[in-house]
Amino acid sequence: MLAENDSDSRATGASLHTLPRFVDARGSLCVGEFASAIPFPSRRYFLVHGVPADTTRGGHAHRRCHQFLIAVSGSCRVGAEDIHGRTSFLLDAPHLGLHLPPMTWATQYEFSAGAVLLVFASETYDPEDYMDDYVGFLSVLRGVGIGR
Amino acid sequence: MLAENDSDSRATGASLHTLPRFVDARGSLCVGEFASAIPFPSRRYFLVHGVPADTTRGGHAHRRCHQFLIAVSGSCRVGAEDIHGRTSFLLDAPHLGLHLPPMTWATQYEFSAGAVLLVFASETYDPEDYMDDYVGFLSVLRGVGIGR
Repeated sequence: MLAENDSDSRATGASLHTLPRFVDARGSLCVGEFASAIPFPSRRYFLVHGVPADTTRGGHAHRRCHQFLIAVSGSCRVGAEDIHGRTSFLLDAPHLGLHLPPMTWATQYEFSAGAVLLVFASETYDPEDYMDDYVGFLSVLRGVGIGR
Repeated sequence: MLAENDSDSRATGASLHTLPRFVDARGSLCVGEFASAIPFPSRRYFLVHGVPADTTRGGHAHRRCHQFLIAVSGSCRVGAEDIHGRTSFLLDAPHLGLHLPPMTWATQYEFSAGAVLLVFASETYDPEDYMDDYVGFLSVLRGVGIGR
């Protein structure tokens, strides 16, 4: 069974971060300073939106790229698998950020209607950084795991 | 009368940028690399959401801070005034970014229901950087303008 949003489970190296938020009569503000709030220097951001119901995105790992995911509108779930195990996370608020280290197989699914996912990435786009063969990913993980 | 989203008007130093977007059956992706797409190094981001109808936010200028505004969900309008004049912009898509240079008096208004505004800022938070007295702002602008 997958643990959900359970940071104590240490099921994977993925980690959920709570960012400062300020609420007043004019609305809500969530703030992050790149040097202190995001666990890596961000070279790129991207926004995922207009995802049809029942669509799964992701389904790959990155060799070197760190990612930090925020559901800035609506919600989605993120599945993460690495050398330590598997976990899933519910992202449903703009002050929650999920850090996915390199060598994490990740999927995003159960996007709510109108959901928008903001992702900060540590690397510029490089197709060579993507691992999209799951069996190959597991083989590399096991190789990495030898001797640990 | 205010020009809206008219980049040829040069009414102010504020400028609208169109970022790359990729649409397929799994949804839409908008991408920006910080070094090339954002006109300044970003030290901070913030997200504005849950803004009640008929609320105006902003109403200040920054002495040194650049900002880059994206309506990542829904829409809002941004009014901008600087040494050159006044303009207003409609932000209604995640691939549109508005650069507000320092010494621009800006307001955000007409937030649609569920609108979320993402802002990248060139500086960490510094209350001394804010100018929230409009008359004082105009005085400084006129002082800046002398001799130009």
